[in-house]
Amino acid sequence: MAFQKPTGTQDLLPGTVEKWQFIEEKVRDLCRRFNYREIRTPIFEQTSLFERGVGETTDIVEKEMYTFLDKGERSMTLRPEGTAGVVRSYVENKLYGEPDVSKLYYIGPMFRYERPQAGRQRQFHQFGVEAFGATDPAIDAEVVALGYQFCRELGLQGVKVEINSVGNPASRAAYREKLLAFLLPMKDSLCKDCQARMERNPLRVLDCKNDQDKFVGAPSILDSLDEECTSHFAKVQELLSAMEVDYVINPRLVRGLDYYTHTAFEYKAQGIGAIDTIGGGGRYNGLVAEVGGPDQPGIGFGMGLERIALILEKQEIEVGAVKPLDVYLIALGEAADKEITTQLFKLRQAGISAERDYLGRKMKAQMKSADRMQARYTAILGDDELERGEIALKSMENGEQRTVKLSELIQELK
Amino acid sequence: MAFQKPTGTQDLLPGTVEKWQFIEEKVRDLCRRFNYREIRTPIFEQTSLFERGVGETTDIVEKEMYTFLDKGERSMTLRPEGTAGVVRSYVENKLYGEPDVSKLYYIGPMFRYERPQAGRQRQFHQFGVEAFGATDPAIDAEVVALGYQFCRELGLQGVKVEINSVGNPASRAAYREKLLAFLLPMKDSLCKDCQARMERNPLRVLDCKNDQDKFVGAPSILDSLDEECTSHFAKVQELLSAMEVDYVINPRLVRGLDYYTHTAFEYKAQGIGAIDTIGGGGRYNGLVAEVGGPDQPGIGFGMGLERIALILEKQEIEVGAVKPLDVYLIALGEAADKEITTQLFKLRQAGISAERDYLGRKMKAQMKSADRMQARYTAILGDDELERGEIALKSMENGEQRTVKLSELIQELK
Repeated sequence: MAFQKPTGTQDLLPGTVEKWQFIEEKVRDLCRRFNYREIRTPIFEQTSLFERGVGETTDIVEKEMYTFLDKGERSMTLRPEGTAGVVRSYVENKLYGEPDVSKLYYIGPMFRYERPQAGRQRQFHQFGVEAFGATDPAIDAEVVALGYQFCRELGLQGVKVEINSVGNPASRAAYREKLLAFLLPMKDSLCKDCQARMERNPLRVLDCKNDQDKFVGAPSILDSLDEECTSHFAKVQELLSAMEVDYVINPRLVRGLDYYTHTAFEYKAQGIGAIDTIGGGGRYNGLVAEVGGPDQPGIGFGMGLERIALILEKQEIEVGAVKPLDVYLIALGEAADKEITTQLFKLRQAGISAERDYLGRKMKAQMKSADRMQARYTAILGDDELERGEIALKSMENGEQRTVKLSELIQELK
Repeated sequence: MAFQKPTGTQDLLPGTVEKWQFIEEKVRDLCRRFNYREIRTPIFEQTSLFERGVGETTDIVEKEMYTFLDKGERSMTLRPEGTAGVVRSYVENKLYGEPDVSKLYYIGPMFRYERPQAGRQRQFHQFGVEAFGATDPAIDAEVVALGYQFCRELGLQGVKVEINSVGNPASRAAYREKLLAFLLPMKDSLCKDCQARMERNPLRVLDCKNDQDKFVGAPSILDSLDEECTSHFAKVQELLSAMEVDYVINPRLVRGLDYYTHTAFEYKAQGIGAIDTIGGGGRYNGLVAEVGGPDQPGIGFGMGLERIALILEKQEIEVGAVKPLDVYLIALGEAADKEITTQLFKLRQAGISAERDYLGRKMKAQMKSADRMQARYTAILGDDELERGEIALKSMENGEQRTVKLSELIQELK
């Protein structure tokens, strides 16, 4: 009986995992420079947190969550996204009491029961940031620019940011009326999903993949923004331009839930097929209060790392090369065999990556093994050399071989 | 309505998360030197994998698993440990077909429904290694030494390794008979758990916390080992001594399941209270075949990172200090305010960690903020300086202030 990984999950093996390590190191280094600090929240949370924080009318909560009862009969859910847990943690740990803006990032696995396809897995991974406590448009611009810079430093080509403003609740309510007036006459011609969305969440209708041609001439939310919203949005654009972020305004880009306010944005990669959104985010000035916290503003984004990895592949960008081995030790003889185990350990203690054979292979096979590991050097110890306290050191680059003292092997390799 | 994290889980916040980042970087660096490469397997697997790979008679499988039905009615379980998934992946991805020994490491969250206490969480984290394909005692010694070196490089004091050999199935069967003969007369005086273990898994009886004093004079498994097992164990000890690993032989250290063979070991920390085991492992020459793979040997260990973190704390060892900020930019005036957003972005693009205020605070409050972030420098830009293309750069270490060209700010800070 052989076992298989669950549908929609992946094994990351040596040879591939290095790409992920590279992406993660990039996240950490980038966030250090932007002064975002890591937060880690549990893999599962109370189900009601996501119902509240993600929204009960969303596809995620309605259809896609991994929900289960724990042994204490409490309903738990594997986190389907990163923001709700971070907001819960921000509130529970009273981070809002700190004097500075809370600038946080997360990276880790998320879970949604969806139909798997290229760049879409049931266990997938997201990098995201959340900044709490500030309404300054400078932080909107910073958050947008951080995600953009991430894509740029990975070497991704053709990444664009689409931005919009969804205003404040008052201006959105005004827009909702205008939009419904535009949509009502065509209601019967819209797809089933859109007809349902018209009731609950009409702004999301404009997102529909099927009916885009019908929406030419639809009112723009930008015409419904009040002065404060317009000025906030203008400032964000001004700063993004100053930072040379490649953005376009997409007035149909909306996030439907009531706690989203002002800036909304998505990162798009071109020419990678049907799924071209890498990630997105927005300002959510109502969300912290929604999950029981004080009235603190927030803004953030989440980015799918499987999609990033897919685009890297499609654009033939190689990152995270396997690190070559420093030295491969070969023993000829029984006494030498014991000695290289000790030498191996000393080299590794000294910071040098070192390997030996464990399969009793002949010298030629061991040299091949050293080659596969891209060893910079091989070091060959016979019982004769051992008696003299020496070892033969061979450069795998130019084939040069010389004899060095065993006691000086570490210095020679450093 | 405020939400709380699930019982037995933790939020790792800035200030604490840096310790975890440090431990993980240590894992990665150590494994690089020992030539182990990372493998990442899914957070959940088919429940039957753990029943088979961990063992149906274990506490883990009987009482502690987070098991649920997915939306396709398949029984899934959050991984309670790391080995089963790695073995499944080794088999499914046919890693046994590669010419070298598969030396793998993992690090990540695991899940067991237990009573939470210090160093024991329901979501906990493990670092582990697995080496497949070799029976050479040199790999046993390497695996034991790797975990020991990990503890040593973290600065942990008083870490000891206990080792034993559980032999091969034949010698273990012989021992089982002798042990049962010793235990049977005292059966009624043993605790309930031990009475049950005597039926299913008598070797585990000697592990019992309650009845240790009754086991004085119990037969030692070491007396039941055949020649091959004795010689393998002697070689492991010889190599551990050569590497100066601080070990003792504990003949009562057993792993009860049939697929464990030869070397068994545990890492113990002294003086940290009731829970003194940091981790453990052993050779499992029967496990790969047990989960449907070819008859390939393996050996590995798993280590609890919550316990490591707890001991670091108890021993007052500080690791993973917060990285100081390179520069905090302060704007005086509206034109300066826009300019520092651009400057900030340029600094960050150039590898410098940089921050500004987003709360419209006065200069004095901004200086305090810079202090909290341990900024090495503050850079102050007034509208006058801006006109001259200059900025005032102040060292927060010695208070020295000088004026530098805006265009040279990056070089000045590098």
